Amino acid sequence: MSDLPRVAVVPSNSDVERAVAQARAQLVDPSEADAIVWTDPTDPDALRKTLSSSPARWVQLPFAGIEEFVAAGVLDHDHVWTCAKGIYGPATAEHAMALLLLGARQLHRHARATRWRIRGEFADARRLKGDTVLIVGTGGIGRDLSRLLEPHGPRIIAVNRSGDAMPGAERTYPVAELQKVVHEADWIVLAAALTPETERIFNATMLTLMRPNAWLINVGRGRLVDTDALVEALRAGRIGGAALDVTDPEPLPDDHPLWSLDNAVITSHSANTWAMAVPELTALVARNIDHFARGEDLEGLVDVDAGY
Amino acid sequence: MSDLPRVAVVPSNSDVERAVAQARAQLVDPSEADAIVWTDPTDPDALRKTLSSSPARWVQLPFAGIEEFVAAGVLDHDHVWTCAKGIYGPATAEHAMALLLLGARQLHRHARATRWRIRGEFADARRLKGDTVLIVGTGGIGRDLSRLLEPHGPRIIAVNRSGDAMPGAERTYPVAELQKVVHEADWIVLAAALTPETERIFNATMLTLMRPNAWLINVGRGRLVDTDALVEALRAGRIGGAALDVTDPEPLPDDHPLWSLDNAVITSHSANTWAMAVPELTALVARNIDHFARGEDLEGLVDVDAGY
Repeated sequence: MSDLPRVAVVPSNSDVERAVAQARAQLVDPSEADAIVWTDPTDPDALRKTLSSSPARWVQLPFAGIEEFVAAGVLDHDHVWTCAKGIYGPATAEHAMALLLLGARQLHRHARATRWRIRGEFADARRLKGDTVLIVGTGGIGRDLSRLLEPHGPRIIAVNRSGDAMPGAERTYPVAELQKVVHEADWIVLAAALTPETERIFNATMLTLMRPNAWLINVGRGRLVDTDALVEALRAGRIGGAALDVTDPEPLPDDHPLWSLDNAVITSHSANTWAMAVPELTALVARNIDHFARGEDLEGLVDVDAGY
Repeated sequence: MSDLPRVAVVPSNSDVERAVAQARAQLVDPSEADAIVWTDPTDPDALRKTLSSSPARWVQLPFAGIEEFVAAGVLDHDHVWTCAKGIYGPATAEHAMALLLLGARQLHRHARATRWRIRGEFADARRLKGDTVLIVGTGGIGRDLSRLLEPHGPRIIAVNRSGDAMPGAERTYPVAELQKVVHEADWIVLAAALTPETERIFNATMLTLMRPNAWLINVGRGRLVDTDALVEALRAGRIGGAALDVTDPEPLPDDHPLWSLDNAVITSHSANTWAMAVPELTALVARNIDHFARGEDLEGLVDVDAGY
């Protein structure tokens, strides 16, 4: 058995330190650390400074998105970099499921009501059974969502870059064919990465192809949707509704029209919180410490040149 | 093969008439019918009048609750009576699931928000994984809910009259022991029948035993809960929240305090609608016509003396 690594957790974080203890690694100052777990998602410069006086060879970023660190130019070839991609999938998938059922049961309207609603006022309420859910993006979130949907009995179709089949989906299409299948969906869940191919993929044209009762649910990135075109579609009642955990811009300004539309709900980027991810995150950190000690491949390796 | 029965659908209802056609029965006037499917849940007296001039031997009531027909004294021993108990379970279970996820993700607060919420404002949001869900009542709704919950990974415990194990539950207790286990639950879902034993079972004492963050979700009957005591608990923040599809009284009056509490949601008895039940309902009616033609036992037989 090799020596267990010396690990610094900066800034100090009790959840992560518990994970280090679980892995029976030694908790040390950065100046004598083999590895650093950097817990502040907002301060890449402080990390750069810490690294300049540390012998650490490996840096674990316990976040899924590390765009800020890439943009700040902190990632280098002198260190091995890992992030927490995949960890936040189950929490985000559950949030998507919650939003889908909110739309199905019109819970936004019930939550805003201040008197008993009568039958005609919830005529749009429906079950998921027999409905078609289109999942755009078949990474961890999409696959987890498909498992949560399964006992409700909808038909699931999916879209991803390659068109390779997603487990649980009846059919999977390459993203280039999205326009051909979007009309089949009663529910569209956006869980794709933001790339030049997916940016504003739900533009005015795509929104026009949606079914009149279909809902657009975005738990991916705000810029997957043309927000102005979405507002127009919602205002005109051309689609059933929208539930957005992510928006463009973000945060959404106080005076944005989305706040006052009765067929829209905004959840302020709350699909995955640190608290929700703690069990998976601590397990990942503990596993990676173990991998590092044994000289094995680490999980969540960052491709420094690609930037993710 | 025996002759297929002559069936009257009163008042005329296209969904039910389609079911009769599916079973290849003959659609006739009540005056020459072997069986009547009575589609108006609100008018027992009209049914009595229809029966007085009909040779029908079997009456299908396509509703789950038939209290109004029992109270009106329409049920007699001259006819075989069937109702649609069980049919509405899957829709109601899905509604309970939607309300549970609403509470977990604080969607009622997001839906009511008119500006971007900041991190501290959704600190109560959580995943179901590892939480404990207590299901009170292990009929169709409770069992269906347990299937929907399973992929989310909570611990499920249950309470019913007998204490006989519910599939999917880690432990099942007799209702007399509810006070002993209620403190274990993060989520309590009421899906029990209303009996002298369960009436106001969630009274002030039981509410006091709930965890401070626990939610009470009622998709059973309004009178399972002492509404005034619940309002007090919600006002004082002694429990996490309440999501009520059924209330006492029902409809809830416009000036009721539940409408203005930020930790309560009312869904106006919309968990199961006719439209949601149509696929199961038409299948049941078609099966029962077939059973009737073959002289087999009918599904959903009503015990006329017991009244359900």
